[in-house]
Amino acid sequence: MGGSSSNKIQNRTSHDSKSLYAVILAGGAGTRFWPLSREAYPKQLLPLMGEGSLLHQTIRRVQGFVPPGNIWIVVTEDKAQDIQFHLAPLGSMANHIRLIKEPMGRNTAAAIGLAALYLHRLSPESVMIVMPSDHAIPETEKFLEALRLALHGAEDDYLITFGIQPTRPETGYGYIQANPSEVINGLLKVECFVEKPNLQTAQAYLADGRYFWNSGIFVWKASKILSEMKIHLPHLYAALKEMENLLFLPSSQNENDKSERRISLCAALYAKLESISIDYGVLERSQNILMVPAYFQWSDLGSWSALDDIMEKDEDGNILKGNVINIESRNSTIFAGERLIATIGLRDMVVVDTPDATLVSPKERAQEVRKVVEKLKQSGREEHLIHKTVERPWGRYTVLEKGKGYKIKRIEVNPNAKLSLQLHRRRSEHWVVVSGVAKVTRDRETYLVHSNESTYIPIQTQHRLENPGEEPLQIIEVQNGDYVEEDDIERFDDDYGR
Amino acid sequence: MGGSSSNKIQNRTSHDSKSLYAVILAGGAGTRFWPLSREAYPKQLLPLMGEGSLLHQTIRRVQGFVPPGNIWIVVTEDKAQDIQFHLAPLGSMANHIRLIKEPMGRNTAAAIGLAALYLHRLSPESVMIVMPSDHAIPETEKFLEALRLALHGAEDDYLITFGIQPTRPETGYGYIQANPSEVINGLLKVECFVEKPNLQTAQAYLADGRYFWNSGIFVWKASKILSEMKIHLPHLYAALKEMENLLFLPSSQNENDKSERRISLCAALYAKLESISIDYGVLERSQNILMVPAYFQWSDLGSWSALDDIMEKDEDGNILKGNVINIESRNSTIFAGERLIATIGLRDMVVVDTPDATLVSPKERAQEVRKVVEKLKQSGREEHLIHKTVERPWGRYTVLEKGKGYKIKRIEVNPNAKLSLQLHRRRSEHWVVVSGVAKVTRDRETYLVHSNESTYIPIQTQHRLENPGEEPLQIIEVQNGDYVEEDDIERFDDDYGR
Repeated sequence: MGGSSSNKIQNRTSHDSKSLYAVILAGGAGTRFWPLSREAYPKQLLPLMGEGSLLHQTIRRVQGFVPPGNIWIVVTEDKAQDIQFHLAPLGSMANHIRLIKEPMGRNTAAAIGLAALYLHRLSPESVMIVMPSDHAIPETEKFLEALRLALHGAEDDYLITFGIQPTRPETGYGYIQANPSEVINGLLKVECFVEKPNLQTAQAYLADGRYFWNSGIFVWKASKILSEMKIHLPHLYAALKEMENLLFLPSSQNENDKSERRISLCAALYAKLESISIDYGVLERSQNILMVPAYFQWSDLGSWSALDDIMEKDEDGNILKGNVINIESRNSTIFAGERLIATIGLRDMVVVDTPDATLVSPKERAQEVRKVVEKLKQSGREEHLIHKTVERPWGRYTVLEKGKGYKIKRIEVNPNAKLSLQLHRRRSEHWVVVSGVAKVTRDRETYLVHSNESTYIPIQTQHRLENPGEEPLQIIEVQNGDYVEEDDIERFDDDYGR
Repeated sequence: MGGSSSNKIQNRTSHDSKSLYAVILAGGAGTRFWPLSREAYPKQLLPLMGEGSLLHQTIRRVQGFVPPGNIWIVVTEDKAQDIQFHLAPLGSMANHIRLIKEPMGRNTAAAIGLAALYLHRLSPESVMIVMPSDHAIPETEKFLEALRLALHGAEDDYLITFGIQPTRPETGYGYIQANPSEVINGLLKVECFVEKPNLQTAQAYLADGRYFWNSGIFVWKASKILSEMKIHLPHLYAALKEMENLLFLPSSQNENDKSERRISLCAALYAKLESISIDYGVLERSQNILMVPAYFQWSDLGSWSALDDIMEKDEDGNILKGNVINIESRNSTIFAGERLIATIGLRDMVVVDTPDATLVSPKERAQEVRKVVEKLKQSGREEHLIHKTVERPWGRYTVLEKGKGYKIKRIEVNPNAKLSLQLHRRRSEHWVVVSGVAKVTRDRETYLVHSNESTYIPIQTQHRLENPGEEPLQIIEVQNGDYVEEDDIERFDDDYGR
């Protein structure tokens, strides 16, 4: 993907490519793909199909099309570090990606407005390609074709939305009604936006030919979207301008204090912003919208059943992944991991297995998984929050078992990575190295622990675990204590600024 | 159960209760309830419903009705130790239960013939109540009523079979056609045995009233079944007589040698026995059969769907067990353990979860689970053989994880129990005590390891783990080595004769 990228940049428009930006919205919550997605591991981080996660794929889709450094990700403050760690596998490219942090989630109008503020400040000519981070678009070339067309319209100060040509009477999407008699440089004038239709209406839309799926992909100048916000969302616009003043205030003495105060003022302003989508807030109200008719395969992956539209199936219509033994099932989606999932004679079912939770549902009801998540929340459980294996900047850990007074973890430390210098008030830890070499700091001593050796960290003792080698380090940690939760940790020094 | 048992014995017949025996057939394989049942953990050991396992329930059903010491279990040699361990929770009663060991499984005619040999030798008047170990009969009193009736018939030298009054047009059972015009002491003359019918025939049987389900429960004199075998299964009978000569040969010098030779001769004879059911081999051919019409709830638990006939359901017709979050499913059976199973809108489905395998199937196809087991066998996997938690005479262990060069187990040792004195050639072991106190023997030292302490057993070192206390001992064992399989064990001393 993005291989012949230099061509694309030259071909695209007369516009200076330097001021072309991709703005990826990565604020999605992630209940729809539970149990694979969790609150701390939302849909955009999932490797559902193809290479890498949906977010990785979104980035690669425009990599080369926009200049290095011009890929921005809008993310809420609390998710920013997870996203940052998640970008690491992209290598040096990850360093060029800029995160725009929202103090909290306030829907797409606010997120796009915030990004537009920054971009407009950088250059009044900035053009932004706005993309959700969790959609599936397998055909990059076709996407870029549509994008080139859209850029022309954006140059001419239109707001451009991507309308996907429908391939079935889908009732799960909103539609855009275009006016094919008004074509401007290959772009269509938009008549109106329509809500998710019932089946009959969707069938009529499909037959009609003027209706397109509303994809949530947009292209426009930062200056143009801001001026439209000023008209259609005046309160939101005013608050953003106030934030701009705070953010870009000339620096003075005692800068640190001011900066902290500014951040908290910004957060207070942001918290009060109207939570509205860009579609409702601007697009449906503006007269300056054009639609690029797009012919690529696309899915918003709104639920497990949406994989059907986008993933390859076996001859019986099944999507099978992982350790599955299947006897004569049809049109079913079975996502297994290492554990065995045996299925017999299923029809149109979804089965999703993870180490701590399994979902079984007919496809047509898979979107009700949110009810399961709701029940988990109400009962104070954690299967909706985190996975058994938790990714960390230094590697990952898996809780193998938790019992009264103890917890067992497998900890994997990446080559040359180290955990923070830390201390636990209420637990001791036994570490058995099963592969690699560990460098252990315990109080004032530092020593190596090799495979098949063990060491002991007493309660209330400063310690640090480090992988000084070039191969991964794996240890089994047995925690003992009256309280063995993650929040019993005091950090003294950390490579990752935690 | 079996509370007012002394009454029953007095009431039952004029027959001397001392020669009344319960013979429980425990040779079942256990693929039908996979993944809950495994080859090493067959259906009769499962606690599917009620108190204890199906085998425990079968024993308790006749406990008190037959004298202590008169409960015999016929089991194959290779399963005998597992069954023995499984009986331990029954307490002192377990010591009175006698195991009759078949060298290998050879169907019910052989198993019953073998038990009859022994019983007839004890007393020519012995009466045997033959019962499968893995059926569900929740109503003990009604069962005992039928049993009393059956005993009268057995006294009069009839072979008595239990026919269950059908409550639905079941196509999964064989039927007995009785002749209600010939009633002998409340028992009916049997016209014939009929194979599993199709639905239409089963409906006709149900309407007819003369048809009963063939339950596989029998009562007869040992002498009578042997004489019927002599007529209808002459080869099998002759081989059994030959075995009898070997088994009951007067002892002489060098008894040990002879005994070993006898055992291997018996095994060779047994291996050649015709593998035929008692129904085909004797009952269908004999003229001396009476049927006791039985009116108790009964199921042979032939597949997961059979639980419907015997277990309590919620208001939506579901059987839910364990950690289940269910959204609007109906008539479904969900067996979960500690892991979360979330189900949405299921209809007539079976979902069974275990730590290493999950089954999802429509109820009506649940019996095809044997195809899954077949595939597992073919692919050389072990999910059909054992569970992640393996019961041992001293407690149990659970494999928490196995990786390249290591294996992690949680080991629970019962109070006052000890593992064998042993040695591993290819692995070392780290033990971390998480609760209780361990007494550890390592080479010539013996020492205590308390909770939150650890110890290390080097490779090729004799060692023993023991729980000297009154509370359960739990340790986490991390094995390290190039080979970490169970068969790397050399035993020097063992409380359990292994």
